[in-house]
Amino acid sequence: MIKIGIAGYGNLGKGVEKAIELNSDMKLSAVFTRRNPKNIKLRTDSAQVIEYNRIAEFKNEIDVIINCGGSACDLPLTTPKIAEYFNVIDSFDTHTRIKEHFDAVDKISKSSKKTAIISVGWDPGLFSLARIYSQAVLSSGNTYTFWGRGVSQGHSDAVRRIDGVLDARQYTVPVMSAIEKVQNGDNADFSAREMHTRECYVVAENGANKKEIERKIKTMPNYFADYDTTVNFISEEEMKHSHSGLPHGGRVIRNGKTDENINHTVEFSLKLDSNPEFTGSILAAFARAAYRLNKKGETGCRTVLDIPPVLLLPESINTMKLL
Amino acid sequence: MIKIGIAGYGNLGKGVEKAIELNSDMKLSAVFTRRNPKNIKLRTDSAQVIEYNRIAEFKNEIDVIINCGGSACDLPLTTPKIAEYFNVIDSFDTHTRIKEHFDAVDKISKSSKKTAIISVGWDPGLFSLARIYSQAVLSSGNTYTFWGRGVSQGHSDAVRRIDGVLDARQYTVPVMSAIEKVQNGDNADFSAREMHTRECYVVAENGANKKEIERKIKTMPNYFADYDTTVNFISEEEMKHSHSGLPHGGRVIRNGKTDENINHTVEFSLKLDSNPEFTGSILAAFARAAYRLNKKGETGCRTVLDIPPVLLLPESINTMKLL
Repeated sequence: MIKIGIAGYGNLGKGVEKAIELNSDMKLSAVFTRRNPKNIKLRTDSAQVIEYNRIAEFKNEIDVIINCGGSACDLPLTTPKIAEYFNVIDSFDTHTRIKEHFDAVDKISKSSKKTAIISVGWDPGLFSLARIYSQAVLSSGNTYTFWGRGVSQGHSDAVRRIDGVLDARQYTVPVMSAIEKVQNGDNADFSAREMHTRECYVVAENGANKKEIERKIKTMPNYFADYDTTVNFISEEEMKHSHSGLPHGGRVIRNGKTDENINHTVEFSLKLDSNPEFTGSILAAFARAAYRLNKKGETGCRTVLDIPPVLLLPESINTMKLL
Repeated sequence: MIKIGIAGYGNLGKGVEKAIELNSDMKLSAVFTRRNPKNIKLRTDSAQVIEYNRIAEFKNEIDVIINCGGSACDLPLTTPKIAEYFNVIDSFDTHTRIKEHFDAVDKISKSSKKTAIISVGWDPGLFSLARIYSQAVLSSGNTYTFWGRGVSQGHSDAVRRIDGVLDARQYTVPVMSAIEKVQNGDNADFSAREMHTRECYVVAENGANKKEIERKIKTMPNYFADYDTTVNFISEEEMKHSHSGLPHGGRVIRNGKTDENINHTVEFSLKLDSNPEFTGSILAAFARAAYRLNKKGETGCRTVLDIPPVLLLPESINTMKLL
């Protein structure tokens, strides 16, 4: 049994816990939290809830820590620290800062002789794998990534920060006609606006200036200004009833040629009822790989691109049958 | 530059040759053939055409041999022999005999300190990868593989062997309603007939008994008896005009759950204008991986499931950017 620890018990941590239940070669040993452990009730009766600052005490009792903190402020600080004592997995997803995070984690995990795998999830993660395999087998071509329809937490948070907004949910929606173009081998050049639209559902305070909220959303740089955005004001009840899930998905499509009129299309797509539960499942599979790499003495930091796929499944499964 | 040799210059060998042209870190050194080398004209001016039985003489001049023989009779004999002298890639695709072939190649390549990767292509190959990744991240679920619409060489050959048949092409066609069921998360149990149909285009001899040919096709065990098969008799001209390509494709879909009502669907699909050219491109990418593994001293036989994806791209590409 691979003994797993979860650091952080939000949506993602809870998703990892469910994934561990579904994998018979793993068990959850402990959840580490910055909240009061007494206020946390796990699904897993046999696991402990421990204060985060006591994590190092468990270094001989846990094989891999799955770090479920946020990318912006938490993971860059905590993953390197955890790597001093543990094999560690995280889902760091700030694409432009992955190299920096990698180097920090690599340095520490090499000296502690631990194995870390960072930026595990579906993007970065499974989508990165789709990009590397499709580029490797179609060296001449173009790769397109479409996200959604799904809830973007970052964009939802951005709307929530606007004055007069009580709650908000933002869906990223791919433009179907663009997807169809790419699927049909059209190597088009798209603007951001041509690939995705943004749909916002907003609960406003009583008496708030809705026109002004809508204007602020639609003109927000980086988040909305470059997209066709629709804003729908709804009641708290409707938010709860129709927008409580965290569905997501998307697709990576590569078009390539092997001769003038010989086109090939490779597509990888996901349709997910729960983004954190699916991401949690991916983290659990890569935790298994980290554990096995470490047993083989392969220490330091890795990304999903470095991992032989065979290490992701329990050793009890005859992977030859999947060929 | 990675120096590649191609063994066998049929459709697949020619596909590999085109792929090498598209990869700037590779060059084709020689093609080995059982035909008279004088009768073969390569696309690549700088490469030699050599009699197959002289292959061992080139052991110091070639980094990897891509063995492009047939699975049924050729690869089980030739890949182990080639592995005595070279790193070697093949596309062995008799699923039930992969383990046996693996063991034979592994034994020899270990003792010769060479690296082999067998069963490289899209199925087995990229589809095997789709199966292993999707199973790893959705441990509770079902995986479905659909092939086509595309030309099956084995089924085309089976029709050609019938008395009175001059030429034949068989298309494997997936049943769209079955695909849609699976895409919508329906974990149905399908019979062979419910997943694929078979379309045959046949050029018959003058005066041949077409009714009898059609009966023989439709009742042929293993190949057609378990499927809804349509047989179309066409002229030689129409065969040449409308059925000279070798398009193919297909998809691997896995449905899984992380909780009672939380479903996820992972899909990997291919749409290929030329099966041998796309397969050739995959072989070239894995030849690069074999070369790099061998440089690191990792010898013996591998399958695609063992290969870290990062080894598939030229070292000049910053793979971090694909995350």
